[in-house]
Amino acid sequence: MRIGILAIGTELLFGQTVNTNATFLSKELNTRGFDVLYHVTVGDNPNRMKEELSTLMKKVDCVITSGGLGPTEDDITRDLVGDYFKRRLIEHPDALKEIEEYYKKNNRLMPKSNIRQALIPEGSIILPNKYGTAPGFILQEDDQVIVSLPGPPSELVPMFNTYVIPVLEQRLDKHMYYKIIRTFGIGESSLEESLMSIIHGQVDPTIATYAKPGECSVRVASQNTDLQVAKKKVEVTIARIKELVGEYIYSENDEELLDVVFHKLLQDNLTLATAESCTGGYIASSITDIEGASQILLGSLVVYSIQSKIKLLGIDKSLIDKFGVVSPQVAIEMATKTRMLHSTDIGIGTTGYLSGGKDVPEKEAGRVCWAIDFKGEVISGEFYLKRNKKRQAFKHYVMLHIMNALNKKIG
Amino acid sequence: MRIGILAIGTELLFGQTVNTNATFLSKELNTRGFDVLYHVTVGDNPNRMKEELSTLMKKVDCVITSGGLGPTEDDITRDLVGDYFKRRLIEHPDALKEIEEYYKKNNRLMPKSNIRQALIPEGSIILPNKYGTAPGFILQEDDQVIVSLPGPPSELVPMFNTYVIPVLEQRLDKHMYYKIIRTFGIGESSLEESLMSIIHGQVDPTIATYAKPGECSVRVASQNTDLQVAKKKVEVTIARIKELVGEYIYSENDEELLDVVFHKLLQDNLTLATAESCTGGYIASSITDIEGASQILLGSLVVYSIQSKIKLLGIDKSLIDKFGVVSPQVAIEMATKTRMLHSTDIGIGTTGYLSGGKDVPEKEAGRVCWAIDFKGEVISGEFYLKRNKKRQAFKHYVMLHIMNALNKKIG
Repeated sequence: MRIGILAIGTELLFGQTVNTNATFLSKELNTRGFDVLYHVTVGDNPNRMKEELSTLMKKVDCVITSGGLGPTEDDITRDLVGDYFKRRLIEHPDALKEIEEYYKKNNRLMPKSNIRQALIPEGSIILPNKYGTAPGFILQEDDQVIVSLPGPPSELVPMFNTYVIPVLEQRLDKHMYYKIIRTFGIGESSLEESLMSIIHGQVDPTIATYAKPGECSVRVASQNTDLQVAKKKVEVTIARIKELVGEYIYSENDEELLDVVFHKLLQDNLTLATAESCTGGYIASSITDIEGASQILLGSLVVYSIQSKIKLLGIDKSLIDKFGVVSPQVAIEMATKTRMLHSTDIGIGTTGYLSGGKDVPEKEAGRVCWAIDFKGEVISGEFYLKRNKKRQAFKHYVMLHIMNALNKKIG
Repeated sequence: MRIGILAIGTELLFGQTVNTNATFLSKELNTRGFDVLYHVTVGDNPNRMKEELSTLMKKVDCVITSGGLGPTEDDITRDLVGDYFKRRLIEHPDALKEIEEYYKKNNRLMPKSNIRQALIPEGSIILPNKYGTAPGFILQEDDQVIVSLPGPPSELVPMFNTYVIPVLEQRLDKHMYYKIIRTFGIGESSLEESLMSIIHGQVDPTIATYAKPGECSVRVASQNTDLQVAKKKVEVTIARIKELVGEYIYSENDEELLDVVFHKLLQDNLTLATAESCTGGYIASSITDIEGASQILLGSLVVYSIQSKIKLLGIDKSLIDKFGVVSPQVAIEMATKTRMLHSTDIGIGTTGYLSGGKDVPEKEAGRVCWAIDFKGEVISGEFYLKRNKKRQAFKHYVMLHIMNALNKKIG
């Protein structure tokens, strides 16, 4: 099934917003065996929108639009899609109710303009929006489909996963089965080289490697009229991949490393505290992004200055003087002290120089020392960050590095 | 001058790569008064590439292609552009030399296939590539222009800035001036309603509102043969906008709220510490994403559990028992205690329930209390988070809310 993605929004053409929706949709669709052939972006201009929609519809079986479903006058996607299929817009009472309730829940008065958002082309499947006011919709006519979704990714993503995928999958004649293996500690080129013996000459399942921030993944996919056949083929290939690079694999189900560790901690009833210098609270903040974090993370000390390391965490000044503030010794002491202070099973310590600076010796720039105190047993290490990345990317990499070590420890 | 951006690369349609090139090019072009009307992405498919190039050329004055200039057989952008203008490809000796030198510099042997990259349509302006092997080129014929750039952003960006902008600017007869105003505390619909009296019926400058996570911005833009006239018009409109919604504006130069506050703190030599419960270290982590953070943030206590609030921060247990752990009283005490502990000018405290849960009273779900202790003077407040957002989005909103209050305080 051939698909075109039509993004609508002048902010995209102004370069204010990156079209991550097209990337997300393409990835999800490809994963399931759909062929995405075009991405097109137009502004909120009725003539150009109309032209691009009808041009695309001639070239593909399904167009997915994103954006232009807002309450303002230049939001006209619903009008254009209605026009295309010659359907009038109907005020949909359920949709209107949901919009009203959205405002009520948020203790705000619904502006009158939002009523527009309940206008949907006749005959559509309506897609509820739990995270915003604009409902989406799907219009199907013979072998043509238009799916219209709101522009904000926080609304488009769940709506697509929950409501659109099942409808589109009914139109597929082959089933796709795939698994995504996640690895840490091996670069993409090395990963690909290690797998060359199975990648080369293999058509089914397809094997593709992807670089993600700080890590790599491998996607193994097979398409077949019989889902069980596809599944079997994927499993056989995965067994071979595990033989070759098993030591780097932390998930066979496309999970985040932090999630993998989090759920093991939860299962084993283990608590954790951090003492963060170079990561600046990023590890604590990442853990508290996960629902149920309060059962794992009891607290964290972001001891960014030397004074706070001494005063709040109780690091011995002489230790810092002797080994330097960025040293495995200090990292270990940070991990142990925070574990003691919070009475947790696990303590994590980080100290490092994310970048150079006048107070940083040239050789030390990018040096990171870390430690885990696991019920009194200490694991620690150090490494140098590659230059020329954003500070946020560095902090993320340090977090992954520590979580990988912790993951291996708790097994 | 109307521009279309044509991205070429199957990896974009697979969702493996985000099309940040289109965003970058659009922003740079709009800033300079070019009208970007289309983004189109196609895979490495000769027929579709050919069709999209010629379709786009009918609709705009200039097409900028990205990608398809590599050394492999499916890299055929140069062939298609040559075909379009009926120019043959010529092996360009200077370009070949540069490719050979690139390999030499990197101590690698040039594969024979790279010779392809020195083939350029006759009559092109050649754009040297300092960061890779594929040179770009510009072909002009009467009022039609095609610019072809390599796909990797690290090559495309400097090539565009250095060589393409000057050539395209010669073709402009109007100049663009614009400003982006950033606001906090007003929703997009209300913002638009407040500005309706100037948005309606106004053609120049154009006024557009945009929603960003937790906040909104307004773009005011004018185009004129005389840049000073455009500038004057924008300034007049901005003065009117300030009369209407001035209280919500925190930047007239498209800055992030946290950056605005950060630079004021830096300028006033003010230090800060946080005590974070519901934000879980997000405020500290966001500050430490900014270069120079160690001059501002001395430390942070992520006191996620009640025990750590009492033990590490020294909050009186009776205060928690009396008012509840999520209360303005506790937030204030957190702000003050962390300021004292870190001996900073400013202390920030957050306590709240990001979501419901078995230990959370129904009415309390989403309640956030915050406080700022500014040299002993306390500002505090509370609000309820909208439901159904990601925890990360909640934390971001709480951070913005506090930074907005701090921004007003330091003035």
